[in-house]
Amino acid sequence: MIIYKKQITVESKGKTPTYINITDAVKEAIAESGISDGICTVISPHTTCAVFFEEYAHDEDENGNESLQVDLNNVLEKTIPDHDSAETFVYPGEEHYQAVESWPNAENYLPGGDRTALWNGDAHLKATIIGSSEVFDVDNGKLGVGSTGYIYFVDFDRTRPRQRKCKIAIIGE
Amino acid sequence: MIIYKKQITVESKGKTPTYINITDAVKEAIAESGISDGICTVISPHTTCAVFFEEYAHDEDENGNESLQVDLNNVLEKTIPDHDSAETFVYPGEEHYQAVESWPNAENYLPGGDRTALWNGDAHLKATIIGSSEVFDVDNGKLGVGSTGYIYFVDFDRTRPRQRKCKIAIIGE
Amino acid sequence: MIIYKKQITVESKGKTPTYINITDAVKEAIAESGISDGICTVISPHTTCAVFFEEYAHDEDENGNESLQVDLNNVLEKTIPDHDSAETFVYPGEEHYQAVESWPNAENYLPGGDRTALWNGDAHLKATIIGSSEVFDVDNGKLGVGSTGYIYFVDFDRTRPRQRKCKIAIIGE
Repeated sequence: MIIYKKQITVESKGKTPTYINITDAVKEAIAESGISDGICTVISPHTTCAVFFEEYAHDEDENGNESLQVDLNNVLEKTIPDHDSAETFVYPGEEHYQAVESWPNAENYLPGGDRTALWNGDAHLKATIIGSSEVFDVDNGKLGVGSTGYIYFVDFDRTRPRQRKCKIAIIGE
Repeated sequence: MIIYKKQITVESKGKTPTYINITDAVKEAIAESGISDGICTVISPHTTCAVFFEEYAHDEDENGNESLQVDLNNVLEKTIPDHDSAETFVYPGEEHYQAVESWPNAENYLPGGDRTALWNGDAHLKATIIGSSEVFDVDNGKLGVGSTGYIYFVDFDRTRPRQRKCKIAIIGE
Repeated sequence: MIIYKKQITVESKGKTPTYINITDAVKEAIAESGISDGICTVISPHTTCAVFFEEYAHDEDENGNESLQVDLNNVLEKTIPDHDSAETFVYPGEEHYQAVESWPNAENYLPGGDRTALWNGDAHLKATIIGSSEVFDVDNGKLGVGSTGYIYFVDFDRTRPRQRKCKIAIIGE
């Protein structure tokens, strides 16, 4: 039994949720691991991002989102509206604004001191519902999914473009 | 530390989501593994299926669905309507239809060339929200859940009956 | 490769969902494990509880719920209303009531024989949507999350205060 770990970096574009098909990166990590039989966990370390398993749908909209991603956005927005005013959500409250403003790296979270940069409550709630991790099968040295199955990392945070990390851990023999 | 893996097969009936109580199969796999302390991951390799943990509720409706399953169907349908027209979802688009039609096994996905066989966007979205995997405790050689806890595999795809796979991986010592 | 397991106990307060920040307990378990590189799974063995990854939001309401927790309650209640009448959900049906009444420990589930103690269908459905487990990264002996990431255990069951268990399993080397 061994464990093989890898961290990949992805770019989110802001304005709308960014969906990234990371299936090839996961398959590459499995190949590098040399593990034949085991499991592969895929993990988001960011609280506004999530990991999920979905079909690759070929048609894309003008933002480069596949049809099932547009549909998922539409479905989630029925109960989680875009965070575009101070009244949309209770989050972030006065104490949270002040806490973030006191951080040494506050500029990363509040560029130019603009408090609306914390209006990402929609992203936090969507990520909680989709979930931060998923476990996959590793079978005979391959990702054990059907021919239509792909792994997606999503950054629901629309406030700005960012570099995001995704962690892959493969355990087996 | 060892890993023990098993794949089980279940039958879905189409028309409505099919819920299958797989608790006994998971317990059997744990017993076969000989693992005393560890974790057990249960994984759907299908993008319209999901795995979750729920109480066994005794009352069933005319489709054989337990009360909590009927309630879950009702709740999910509030934001994810049945995919019963070309307008319900953006998915599947023209490129996706054509891609599937070009597959060597196209007949499996589009029996008789009927494009409505791809009207399972509801199932894709529900499966994404419920999640494709769940991890359970293995404690003293047993599934580490309370007396009211059961493991369910659900096929949300209503388009047709199908044979589905579910993967179980137990890791421990 | 070793596995280290720990069970923690938390108290839920009833009336509203109880959210508990268990990040320090998870970090303590990782330190105790001596594992440097691996994964950490956090598991609820209760079907009305869930585990998720979220930012710590500083502001609290009168029930001690952080702003993002109030927002999550509000979002989930849009499709899953409080179970406050026999008509809210199909669950629990007559057979389920009778089954629970026949259990040797029925008094634990139906204190004083009050059937409304089973009106926790809302909690079952919310827990299914959020999920019973999540996997985290263990990197260089630490919980591998960003500085704003925390782990929460939630008991959605509002029917009464209870002691709940949460299971932590760390695998690695």
